[in-house]
Amino acid sequence: MKKVSVGVDIGGTNTAIGVVDEMGHVLTKDSISTPSHGDINKYIEDLSAAINKLITNAKLMNEEIEIIGIGVGAPNGNYYSGTIEYAPNLSFKGVVHVVKLLKAHFPDLEAIALTNDANAAAIGEMIYGGAKGMKNFVMYTLGTGVGSGVVVNGDLVYGHDGFAGECGHTTLVPGGRLCGCGAQGHLEAYCSAPGMKRTAFELLAKYNATDSPLANHTYNDLTSKMIYDAAVAGDKVALEVFELTGHHLGQGIADTIHHLSPEAIFLFGGPLAAGELILKPTKESIEKHLLPIFKDKIQLLPSKLDAGDAAIVGASALAWKELNK
Amino acid sequence: MKKVSVGVDIGGTNTAIGVVDEMGHVLTKDSISTPSHGDINKYIEDLSAAINKLITNAKLMNEEIEIIGIGVGAPNGNYYSGTIEYAPNLSFKGVVHVVKLLKAHFPDLEAIALTNDANAAAIGEMIYGGAKGMKNFVMYTLGTGVGSGVVVNGDLVYGHDGFAGECGHTTLVPGGRLCGCGAQGHLEAYCSAPGMKRTAFELLAKYNATDSPLANHTYNDLTSKMIYDAAVAGDKVALEVFELTGHHLGQGIADTIHHLSPEAIFLFGGPLAAGELILKPTKESIEKHLLPIFKDKIQLLPSKLDAGDAAIVGASALAWKELNK
Repeated sequence: MKKVSVGVDIGGTNTAIGVVDEMGHVLTKDSISTPSHGDINKYIEDLSAAINKLITNAKLMNEEIEIIGIGVGAPNGNYYSGTIEYAPNLSFKGVVHVVKLLKAHFPDLEAIALTNDANAAAIGEMIYGGAKGMKNFVMYTLGTGVGSGVVVNGDLVYGHDGFAGECGHTTLVPGGRLCGCGAQGHLEAYCSAPGMKRTAFELLAKYNATDSPLANHTYNDLTSKMIYDAAVAGDKVALEVFELTGHHLGQGIADTIHHLSPEAIFLFGGPLAAGELILKPTKESIEKHLLPIFKDKIQLLPSKLDAGDAAIVGASALAWKELNK
Repeated sequence: MKKVSVGVDIGGTNTAIGVVDEMGHVLTKDSISTPSHGDINKYIEDLSAAINKLITNAKLMNEEIEIIGIGVGAPNGNYYSGTIEYAPNLSFKGVVHVVKLLKAHFPDLEAIALTNDANAAAIGEMIYGGAKGMKNFVMYTLGTGVGSGVVVNGDLVYGHDGFAGECGHTTLVPGGRLCGCGAQGHLEAYCSAPGMKRTAFELLAKYNATDSPLANHTYNDLTSKMIYDAAVAGDKVALEVFELTGHHLGQGIADTIHHLSPEAIFLFGGPLAAGELILKPTKESIEKHLLPIFKDKIQLLPSKLDAGDAAIVGASALAWKELNK
C-alpha cells in the first residue's frame, strides 16, 4: 500500500484540496468555493464530499493507496483546539470547530489536524522540503501578509494558546507604517506585497521619479510583479524597493535569530522569484543587526516547496506530523 | 536523605557557590575570586576545592543530605558543549571545557551542566519560582546587560548552537543607540542599567533640566539607584526614564510574544524594585504593539526568585532539570 495524506488549504475565496504522497507529490487535486454563507456545518459537508470524491479519484488512479489523515491550513487556525478563530477574511463567525466536524465525517482517520497556513508551510518544508533533518528552523511566508512557522527541537511551536509564530508582526519602525492589524511599524507593513507597493510609492514621491515605469500605474493597479519586472529592467526605484524590503526583512529575521538561534531561515513566496535581488539585501541586513556570536552562522534559504502547490502540500504534511507525534 | 544541588554562578569578578535544596532555599554559600590568570585548569581545581568545602559544611549542618549535581551559570555558557566560549569579561581565552573538567573532579555526580546566567535564571523560575507548572514562558533579566531565557513545551530553548535566548538584542530603533555588541538600537542599549542612565542624560539635555537632582551627577557616577530614588521623590526626569524604559521593553516583549505566544513574561533585576513604575509602562507598551489575538492574554510578572541568591539558585536548578530530563 502507498500511504498518502489529504491537504486542505482554506483561503478567503477558494478551498484547495490535494491528495499528497510521502514525498510531497500531489497525486490529484481539486478546489471548492470557500462560501460566504457563514454556515460551517454546510461547508464541512461540502468539503467532506469533495474530499471523498478526490479520494475516489486517487484510488481509481492507484488502487494501492491508503489515506492516513487530513491536514488543514487556515487563517487563524488553532492547532490545539482544531478551530478557526475570528478569521477576518472568512464568513464563519467566532470560533468554528473544523477538526471536530471533520472527524464526524471521517471517523476512521486517526490523524486530522489544523493549523494556520504559515505553520503548515513550515511543516511541509520539514517533512518534504529543504528542512528535512533540521531540528531548529523558522519559515517566513511572504504574500498578501507575512506569516511564519517556528520549529524548535523538531516540533512546531504553537505557544500556550496555539497562536505562536506571528513574526510578521515584529515592530521594525517605532511609530512607522500602519499595519493591517492596527499597530504601527510591523514587518508585514514593509515586507508583504502591499508593503512593497507602499515602499515603491514612497520612493516615487521621494525622488519625483517621473521616468520610472512604476510612475505610470495607480496605487490600486500596481502589483509586485510590475515592481519585479521594472527591477529586472534596471529601474532604480524598483531596485531600491527590493533593497529596502530586504533591509527590513533582515532586521526582523535578526530578531528571530536572537530569540531562537535556528539552523536556517527559510523564505517562501512571490518575492523569492527575484532571487538575489531580495536575498542579498536580506542577508546583509541580518548580519548587520546580529550579535557577533551569531554572525555568518545561520543559513538564509529559499523554500524548496513548489510555489503552486505549497499550501496543500504543507497542510498534508500536518497529517504526517500528527501521525508520528 | 534530603536531596540538594550545587549552584555555581561565574561572574567577571567573583564566583558564587551555593548548596540549594529542592525548594530553592540556599542552605549554605560561599564565593571565590574569578581569577584573572586565565588558567582554566587551575581555576577548576580551586572551584572544586571550594565546592567540596561547602558540601562538607552543608553535611556538618545536616548529615542527611545527598548531592544530586552541579549547575553552572556563566556568561557565554553553552549548554550543549558544556563550554564557556569567548566570554569578553573573563580571563579564559577561546573555548574552555568547564563541564568536562568538573566531571573529572566529581566523577560520581550524574548531573553536571552549564548554561548562561539568564537561561539559569529561567530554569530557576520554572523549578522553584513563579513559573512552576508553566510550559511556555520567557524570562528577561535586567542588569548591566539584558539577558533572557526562553521556555517552550517545558524545555529551555538552546537553538541549534546553544545560544538561543538573546532577546536583549532585538532591534528596537533602526539606527539607534550603539549597543555593547557593536550593533545599533538593540533593546539592551535602552533597558539595561547603563541604558537607563543614557536615557536620563538624554532627558536632562532635552529639557535642560537643571532642577532635577540627576543634574548634579556626572555620567560616570549616576547609578540606577539614584534614578529610582529621584523617581520616588517625584522628579519628572527620573519618572520619564522609567516611562521610556518600560516603553522600549514593552516593544521588545511584544516581539517575543509574536514569536512564541508564551503564557507569561517574567522580569528579573534591579528595576523591578520600582514595581509599577516600570511594570505599568511596560504593560501598556506590550499591548500597544501586539496583534489583537494576543491582547490582554499574556501575563507580565515580576520574578519570584530572591534577588540576592537568584544566580546560584538558578544555576542549581539546572542540575535538577538535567537529572529529570
